[in-house]
Amino acid sequence: MEHQAEKSNGRHDSDHPVVSFLGPVSSYTHQTALQRFNDNEYGFEPASSITGVFEAVQSGAADFGVVPFENSTNGAVIFTLDLLADRQSMYADISVCDEAYLDVSHYLLGHKAAVTSSPEMSGASTPTSLIPSPLKPRSKPLSSIKHIKRIYTHPQAFGQCEIFLGAYLKGIERIDVSSTSKAAELVKEDKTGTSAAIASSLAAEIHGLDVLAKAIEDREDNTTRFFILRKGVDETAKHTGNPTKSLISFTVDHRSPGALADVLECFRNKKLNLTSINSRPTRIVPFQYIFFVEFEGSLRHDPDGRVKGALSDLEKYAQSWRLLGSWEDKLVR
Amino acid sequence: MEHQAEKSNGRHDSDHPVVSFLGPVSSYTHQTALQRFNDNEYGFEPASSITGVFEAVQSGAADFGVVPFENSTNGAVIFTLDLLADRQSMYADISVCDEAYLDVSHYLLGHKAAVTSSPEMSGASTPTSLIPSPLKPRSKPLSSIKHIKRIYTHPQAFGQCEIFLGAYLKGIERIDVSSTSKAAELVKEDKTGTSAAIASSLAAEIHGLDVLAKAIEDREDNTTRFFILRKGVDETAKHTGNPTKSLISFTVDHRSPGALADVLECFRNKKLNLTSINSRPTRIVPFQYIFFVEFEGSLRHDPDGRVKGALSDLEKYAQSWRLLGSWEDKLVR
Repeated sequence: MEHQAEKSNGRHDSDHPVVSFLGPVSSYTHQTALQRFNDNEYGFEPASSITGVFEAVQSGAADFGVVPFENSTNGAVIFTLDLLADRQSMYADISVCDEAYLDVSHYLLGHKAAVTSSPEMSGASTPTSLIPSPLKPRSKPLSSIKHIKRIYTHPQAFGQCEIFLGAYLKGIERIDVSSTSKAAELVKEDKTGTSAAIASSLAAEIHGLDVLAKAIEDREDNTTRFFILRKGVDETAKHTGNPTKSLISFTVDHRSPGALADVLECFRNKKLNLTSINSRPTRIVPFQYIFFVEFEGSLRHDPDGRVKGALSDLEKYAQSWRLLGSWEDKLVR
Repeated sequence: MEHQAEKSNGRHDSDHPVVSFLGPVSSYTHQTALQRFNDNEYGFEPASSITGVFEAVQSGAADFGVVPFENSTNGAVIFTLDLLADRQSMYADISVCDEAYLDVSHYLLGHKAAVTSSPEMSGASTPTSLIPSPLKPRSKPLSSIKHIKRIYTHPQAFGQCEIFLGAYLKGIERIDVSSTSKAAELVKEDKTGTSAAIASSLAAEIHGLDVLAKAIEDREDNTTRFFILRKGVDETAKHTGNPTKSLISFTVDHRSPGALADVLECFRNKKLNLTSINSRPTRIVPFQYIFFVEFEGSLRHDPDGRVKGALSDLEKYAQSWRLLGSWEDKLVR
């Protein structure tokens, strides 16, 4: 683990292809990058924003990019959708070539209280009677957390730990920061020892923080889906026979009633199941949207021509469209 | 204006119907509430969260609620969608009875620098040559803002002012807070005078801050759409003949391929134009969604039975669904 952290800290063998990921080091995206790409064969470069990952891939500074796309509790990552919308055509060559799922387990990290008291004595036992059964916290503090006066984390992580926070840290000041790793860094710097961060177990190791509670997320099945980005399409990639998915973005003429339904009907006609749908403002005309539709199938492995057929039908109804990529479905159902 | 601010500060005549709005006082939602409801006839109560507005309306503590639904630059307000999703059936009686649009203009508020220098001397002149033409800021500082060391605002507002911030406050520390009004409050409290807030002109008046720059939003047409909530449906409301819109939420059986397209086809069949589509995680099974579809038409004024027909067809394909309301379309096109 130490070796991986060093490697990903900006340095890498120049012979190796480079993977840009949403940093900093120890982020969930970093974990995903390490899980997806063998660190003997790839160099890892943290980017300070999702935009940074897109820029690295588009410019060729990185061969691959790893960005979060959606969380099973909190939904789509708006920043990634906005970059995929590519309103200014800045990322014209970027495509999605794969996906990866990470079971996200949040830890409460900080400094143990100076005088250690048992969880029972500190009021940290599970307050069973106070919380309705579907909203019981999944874990309890490992030691007293009564000294905690403020909590740092990313807004998405607060949203995924509401039950634990409501049970054990109700009313404690919350401070939004740009990443869970940044939160761990800030807690490390706070010499009063009264701050805590919600972050990954990797962040505890890297920043040398105490684990105050494990697995504090509301749902056991808290999963984040990531996209792997590359420049252009890998024409040499072999089809494995596994199910595939594709992502398309499009706009419709909003003066034409039913245009959105007409586009979606193109997929239905060809029996291509839709697996997700999202929309973002066009930022050209208020309350007109860029739509994102994910569907089962791949343009590159399309034996019965259904994907090609749907895209050709869609040409009639969409004002503009772009196939953002096709990849192998990695969701374990 | 002073009178309105006082009135909305929690006090109201008990004979008057009560409007709960996302506070604090001077928020954009407050502005919208004052624009939509005559303050001689209604009392105004700020709620500290969107959840608070839903609770006030559901419990009957308020007769109406005002919540933001989407912004033309930043897209849907996730918190409002999640409350409308109503996964725990806590807001079973709430319906959307109207919409309102507010042109959102952000101001940079703070304390003027102790020694006033002209904009030209302070480097605050428009850096025309550095910024590509589509990304020129729409306004420039009214006086030097070189003393500003940190900026407070709501994450949505940062997202709406990127061009101005990139041109005049690049690299300055940004702190996310829960509302633009809260940002103004924090800046008022900071005695060093080196903080600034992005907030409404109403916030400048209420908190007595200097206007450092006006209209710093990226787009002139930066508009937020609000929903007006009530308990149940007003059976006495008369149809004015103006176009109407309705909002429905639904889930589909994800083992049934094409179920989403089948539901949308119900609207297409009846020639009901879709005006927006959103999705949120069900939080029951990962990567399965609650969909929100807005369409033209009203169940209460449905002369040719098209809305009734679509809803009856949809019954076959949706696993569950709920009509969240019908109201008069207020978008000026």
